[in-house]
Amino acid sequence: MAANDRRSNRQLLLTSRPTGRITPGNFTLAEAPIPRLADGQALLKTLYLSIDPAMRSWMDDADGYMPRIRLGEVVRSAGIAQVAESCHPSFRSGELVYGLTGWQEFSVIDNGNESSFGKLPPDISMPVRTLTNLAGATGMAAYFGMCAIARPQPGETLVVTAAAGAVGSLAGQIGKIFGCRVTGVTSSDEKCRWLMEELGFDAAVNYKSGNWRRALEQTCPGGIDILFENAGGEASDFILTRLNSRARIVLCGLIASYHGERQARVFLAPVLMKRLRIEGFLVADYAARFDEALRRLARWTLDGRLQHRETIVDGLEQAPAALNLLFDGGNVGKLLVKTDTTADVAPVATLVEQ
Amino acid sequence: MAANDRRSNRQLLLTSRPTGRITPGNFTLAEAPIPRLADGQALLKTLYLSIDPAMRSWMDDADGYMPRIRLGEVVRSAGIAQVAESCHPSFRSGELVYGLTGWQEFSVIDNGNESSFGKLPPDISMPVRTLTNLAGATGMAAYFGMCAIARPQPGETLVVTAAAGAVGSLAGQIGKIFGCRVTGVTSSDEKCRWLMEELGFDAAVNYKSGNWRRALEQTCPGGIDILFENAGGEASDFILTRLNSRARIVLCGLIASYHGERQARVFLAPVLMKRLRIEGFLVADYAARFDEALRRLARWTLDGRLQHRETIVDGLEQAPAALNLLFDGGNVGKLLVKTDTTADVAPVATLVEQ
Repeated sequence: MAANDRRSNRQLLLTSRPTGRITPGNFTLAEAPIPRLADGQALLKTLYLSIDPAMRSWMDDADGYMPRIRLGEVVRSAGIAQVAESCHPSFRSGELVYGLTGWQEFSVIDNGNESSFGKLPPDISMPVRTLTNLAGATGMAAYFGMCAIARPQPGETLVVTAAAGAVGSLAGQIGKIFGCRVTGVTSSDEKCRWLMEELGFDAAVNYKSGNWRRALEQTCPGGIDILFENAGGEASDFILTRLNSRARIVLCGLIASYHGERQARVFLAPVLMKRLRIEGFLVADYAARFDEALRRLARWTLDGRLQHRETIVDGLEQAPAALNLLFDGGNVGKLLVKTDTTADVAPVATLVEQ
Repeated sequence: MAANDRRSNRQLLLTSRPTGRITPGNFTLAEAPIPRLADGQALLKTLYLSIDPAMRSWMDDADGYMPRIRLGEVVRSAGIAQVAESCHPSFRSGELVYGLTGWQEFSVIDNGNESSFGKLPPDISMPVRTLTNLAGATGMAAYFGMCAIARPQPGETLVVTAAAGAVGSLAGQIGKIFGCRVTGVTSSDEKCRWLMEELGFDAAVNYKSGNWRRALEQTCPGGIDILFENAGGEASDFILTRLNSRARIVLCGLIASYHGERQARVFLAPVLMKRLRIEGFLVADYAARFDEALRRLARWTLDGRLQHRETIVDGLEQAPAALNLLFDGGNVGKLLVKTDTTADVAPVATLVEQ
């Protein structure tokens, strides 16, 4: 579909800052003209938006690892896009890129922002929605959190919080691939079943059930060697008391504290006594290894060792509601907003090895 | 001096558990017979006891990275000792060893405990008190905390808490050797002068002075890349708010919280946002690299790049008072108890390179 099949570029702007949960009133749907390209630019048509917990923190009036979104600005968001037209020497029409598209239907890539986009290797053919899951921040976070930070050893016990989420569900499966015993912590019995029956987790615990502490403890009789932390809630506090010596805490997210109602923390005395390692990380720090990561994730997926699931919400205007879904525990796997109805046309194909 | 020059082995036993500060009443001075050796044993004569903050935590009714000291048991302590008699195939009379001698004049090494002792290389000749400082847990903690965990880069800013202590004073100097800008945090103006004028720290801040926060901030205009943490007190809380992205917290000690009046903690949100790494460690985990560490520390010392200072307290019976000195900020550098008046006879000599 050519860019000028549509007369405008629909965008969601952040027009007021949320306190606590976001509401539709924090955003304004605007229609901007589709940008005309200058030399050195390419026009990107957004296919899927990746809905990630960190986006909520970008809306606060404070800078984190990325600056806050300014009022009146298009909401910052990762997404997968296709080059619709190109006057850029490195991008050809039809190519797929992953990067900060924003909550809008079209965006422009040029030398001012091209470092925030990565081209997807054309020899890895998968449905676009799967690529958005694996090649995006969530797949990369699971991969580097496990392979670069946790560095699991066979026989170790891994606990993953927010385990049915996009990152958690992949991180736990990567733990299994490396020979760990894996427990997932999640928010419903249905999600527990999915983790155990479909994804092969050894155990799963619903932290909303009455006896979750006891259940969690029983799934880890030998203590816990790795906490893959996506939550920072009450379950995490409990897990921290059950860590073995030399355990690692991969700090990937703190979804339980993004609305400011809770300040997750660790006491240092056990970190000292048990020689723990706690490490926060940003996927962008591992940019040089993206290709390695994507090829391994794709290989595991095609071999059937890595299951994935996407929850798809249709239409750009649903993006704010989708973001709230994340915090309500309403999604399983990777949450995507489909911005273009023609998006999911790429065929499933085998991975072409390098 | 042969073992039987003395008729008994004086020992300090832990006979009641301290609450807060230790008192003389927590210990009983006992006289046991000097052990007779069986085959496979060697008799060690303690020369110096190393007085370390962690010892206080071993006296609590809780197990940490080492089990608690049992009531009625000789107080566990590292020290340097000389082999007085040997029926052990690997130890010869006259050799120096470092390890868990305990608060006693004589101890026995055999295959039940020899893994907790290390023989000092005979080709590194230094005064025994210096060896106790460098080859002991304090020198090794400074070395591995900096070289294995912090991994400093030239131009980075390092802040050391309890900087005039045995570990801190060495860690800061190692930072200088690696090209860091180094600020020490300590408890008196006199110690500040020592750190800057004698040890070459770029800055030092007395956290008991009125304007310490402002002073500390001014010494680190570009933020802080490494916190070498020995304290866990108020200054540490402030330093944690001034860390740069990808900063490392080397968790070596928490002397401000060993009496239970304070629970040092870190909030996880900044660890996530700034991609921090927090790591506790135990010197024993690096046993395979002790020889490397001792040779580098000795080389730096003989080259004049690493200054050291020992505070010597005379007599086994003074060990409890010496341990309290540590928490009162009453010592500079490494605190040792000299248990034998003939101890410091080894000559200063040059390092024989391997």
